[in-house]
Amino acid sequence: MAFSFVVRATDGAARTGLIHTPRGEIRTPAFMPVGTAGAVKAMFPEDVAATGADIILGNTYHLMLRPGAERVAALGGLHRFMNWPRPILTDSGGFQVMSLASLRKLTEEGVSFRSHIDGSMHVLTPERSIEIQCLLAADIQMQLDECPAMPIAHDKAAESMRLSLRWAERSRCAFNDLSKPGQALFGIVQGANYEDLRRESLSRLMEIGFPGYSIGGLAVGEGREEMFRVLDFTTPHMDAARPRYLMGVGKPADIVGAVARGVDMFDCVLPTRAGRHGQAWTPDGPVTITNARFAADETPLDPSSVCPASRDYSKAYLHHLFKAGEYLGPMLLTWHNLHYYQQLMAGLRAAIAEGRLAGFIADFRARTGETIL
Amino acid sequence: MAFSFVVRATDGAARTGLIHTPRGEIRTPAFMPVGTAGAVKAMFPEDVAATGADIILGNTYHLMLRPGAERVAALGGLHRFMNWPRPILTDSGGFQVMSLASLRKLTEEGVSFRSHIDGSMHVLTPERSIEIQCLLAADIQMQLDECPAMPIAHDKAAESMRLSLRWAERSRCAFNDLSKPGQALFGIVQGANYEDLRRESLSRLMEIGFPGYSIGGLAVGEGREEMFRVLDFTTPHMDAARPRYLMGVGKPADIVGAVARGVDMFDCVLPTRAGRHGQAWTPDGPVTITNARFAADETPLDPSSVCPASRDYSKAYLHHLFKAGEYLGPMLLTWHNLHYYQQLMAGLRAAIAEGRLAGFIADFRARTGETIL
Repeated sequence: MAFSFVVRATDGAARTGLIHTPRGEIRTPAFMPVGTAGAVKAMFPEDVAATGADIILGNTYHLMLRPGAERVAALGGLHRFMNWPRPILTDSGGFQVMSLASLRKLTEEGVSFRSHIDGSMHVLTPERSIEIQCLLAADIQMQLDECPAMPIAHDKAAESMRLSLRWAERSRCAFNDLSKPGQALFGIVQGANYEDLRRESLSRLMEIGFPGYSIGGLAVGEGREEMFRVLDFTTPHMDAARPRYLMGVGKPADIVGAVARGVDMFDCVLPTRAGRHGQAWTPDGPVTITNARFAADETPLDPSSVCPASRDYSKAYLHHLFKAGEYLGPMLLTWHNLHYYQQLMAGLRAAIAEGRLAGFIADFRARTGETIL
Repeated sequence: MAFSFVVRATDGAARTGLIHTPRGEIRTPAFMPVGTAGAVKAMFPEDVAATGADIILGNTYHLMLRPGAERVAALGGLHRFMNWPRPILTDSGGFQVMSLASLRKLTEEGVSFRSHIDGSMHVLTPERSIEIQCLLAADIQMQLDECPAMPIAHDKAAESMRLSLRWAERSRCAFNDLSKPGQALFGIVQGANYEDLRRESLSRLMEIGFPGYSIGGLAVGEGREEMFRVLDFTTPHMDAARPRYLMGVGKPADIVGAVARGVDMFDCVLPTRAGRHGQAWTPDGPVTITNARFAADETPLDPSSVCPASRDYSKAYLHHLFKAGEYLGPMLLTWHNLHYYQQLMAGLRAAIAEGRLAGFIADFRARTGETIL
C-alpha cells in the first residue's frame, strides 16, 4: 500500500524505474498527460490508458473553481469522477493562480485571487491546497510554491525560494494531518537559474524530507539550453532514491535531454494542445496537418503504429477534418500525439535498461534535427 | 453481390427485415447516423458501429464542396476516406443546396448555387449528383429532387413533384451508366401533403422502377400529426418488397410512429446534434444535462447499459464537462444518444419479429408521455 520508488537500471545520469502507488505502478521515465479540468481534453480515459499512460495530471486551480473540491469529494474523488482508476498527480494550484487568475495578492499566508471563470474571490494557502488535493484524492500531491517569471534578480529569487520553503514545511504538516496511506507529497525545488539558490532550496527540502522532488520554475520561457544548464547543476544533488519530476516539460527534445540528466517524470499540455490545433508529433518532428501539402496525402501518420489514430486515417482525411472543423480532427490528433509521447517514453526506458541511451539520443537527434540535447 | 431486401416478419403495417449490400447487411427498421462531412460528428467510426449502426449517411452537398468528390475518389472512396467499411447512403445534395447555399437558381436542368463555404459557384444536375455519389462510392444513392417548403399550394406542389419525377428518370439513366454492381438508387416520393400528388409521384416512380423508395418533403416543420397523416395515405401504396426510407426523421416518437406505418429506414442529425448541445435522450425522454439539478447527481444515464458513455460517467460529471466546455462532453453524449437510438431500433425490430409492437408502443407512450404515435 505504501508509496515507493525503485531504480531498475541507470545509463549515465539517466534512470529507469518503477513508482508503486496503491492505484498502480508508474514506469519511469514517465510522461503524464494533462487532464486540467477533470478530463484529458478530447480523449476517452480508456484510450489515454491504451497509449501507455500510467498516470495523469489534474489541475488544482481549475478543479477547485469548477466543479469544486468538495463536490468532487462528495462524488467519490477525482478518479471516480473522471473514470480514471489509475494514479493521478495534482499540482498545488499556485502556478495557475499566477498565470490565469486576476487580482492576485501574495502574502506570507498564501495567495488570494479572483476566479477567471466567474470573478469570485478565493484564497489558496499551503494548507488549503493540500486539503483540496486530499479531497480530490490525488495519489501524488504538490506543495504550494511560488513560481516567479525569469529573468529575476538574485535577491528576489532568493526571497521567493525561501517563501516556497516555508510553504513546503506548512504543506508537509497539512499533508501529515489530512492524507491517506499510500499518498505522497512532493517538495518543489525553486531558485530560478541560480546554482546557489537551487542548492539551498534542495538541501532544505531534503532536510524536511519528501518521497519525491519536483523541479519547478523551469519551462517558463528561459530556453532549452538554459533549462538544461539549471538541470546540470541541480539533478546531480537530488536524492537518487526519490523520483525527480520536471514540471511542465515539454517538447520531445526537452524530455530526451532531461531524461539524460536524470529526470524521471514529466507533464505538458503540448501533445493535447497541439493535437487540438492540427499539429502532429512524429519521430521526424512536428507536422502541421492543415498544410496544403497534406490535402491529397493518402498515407497515415504512422502505418506501422498500434494506435488506430496514427494508423487508420490518411493525412488527407485528418487535413479535411481540421478544414471542416470536425471534432474528430482534434480527437484523432490528440490520440496520435499522446501515443507518440508514450512511445518516446517507452523507447527511453528500454534504451536506459539496455545501456544504449547514447545511441537512442543520436538517432533522435538525426531524425528530428534537434541539436541541443 | 446484388442489392436486395427481404422482409422477415410483419406486425400490422410494420416490417422487420434485412437489406443486403456488398458492404454488409442492414437490419431494418434501421436508423442511420448522419456523417455530414465525412465523419459522424464527435464519434470514432468503431464506436458508431459498436452502437449497432449498420449504415451511416453522408451528405453530397458538403462532400462535393469539401474535400470534393474527385478528391474522395482519388483517395479510395468515402468508405476508405472515413475508415467506415460498412454501407453508406448518400443524399442527392438537393435538400442542402436549398437550405444552406445562397444565390440558388432552379431550372429544368438542375440547380446552380453559391457555396456557403467559400462562395464558389456550382451546378448540381441529376446527372452530376449521381456522378458525385458514384465517385463517393455510396452503396445507396438518392435521385436529385426538389423538396419544397410546406405549406405549398396544390399547383406549385404538383409542378415541383413532376420536376422531381423528370429528375428521377434522368438520375436512373445516369446511375445505369455510372454505378457499380450492388449499388442501389432510390426514387423519392414527393407531393407535399396532397394525397393525389403523393399517389401520382409514387406510381410514376414505380413505373420507372427502383430498388427502394424514399419519402421526401416531410419533417420540414409540418408537425408530427400531419407527417403521420401523409404516411397513412402513402406507405400502404408503396411496393412492399422494397425498403421505404423516411428522409430526415426524426425524434424517437416520430420513428416509432413511422415504423408502425411501415417505414424501414431513417436518418436524422438529432442524436448527434443534441449530444453536442448537452441533450441526452433516454427511455423516459430527453434530459438537458446542463440543468443545475444534475450538478451533484452521481448516477449515470443508464447504469445497465453496455455503452460506456451511458454507464461509466455520472450525470454530475457530464454536467461538469459541458459547463467546462470540454470536448469529452459532446463525445460522451453523442455516443450515448446514438446508442439509445440503436437500442430503440433493436427494440422495434424485436417487437415486430415477436408480434408485440402494440405493447412496445404502449410502453414507449407510457414512459415518454408522447401521445401522438
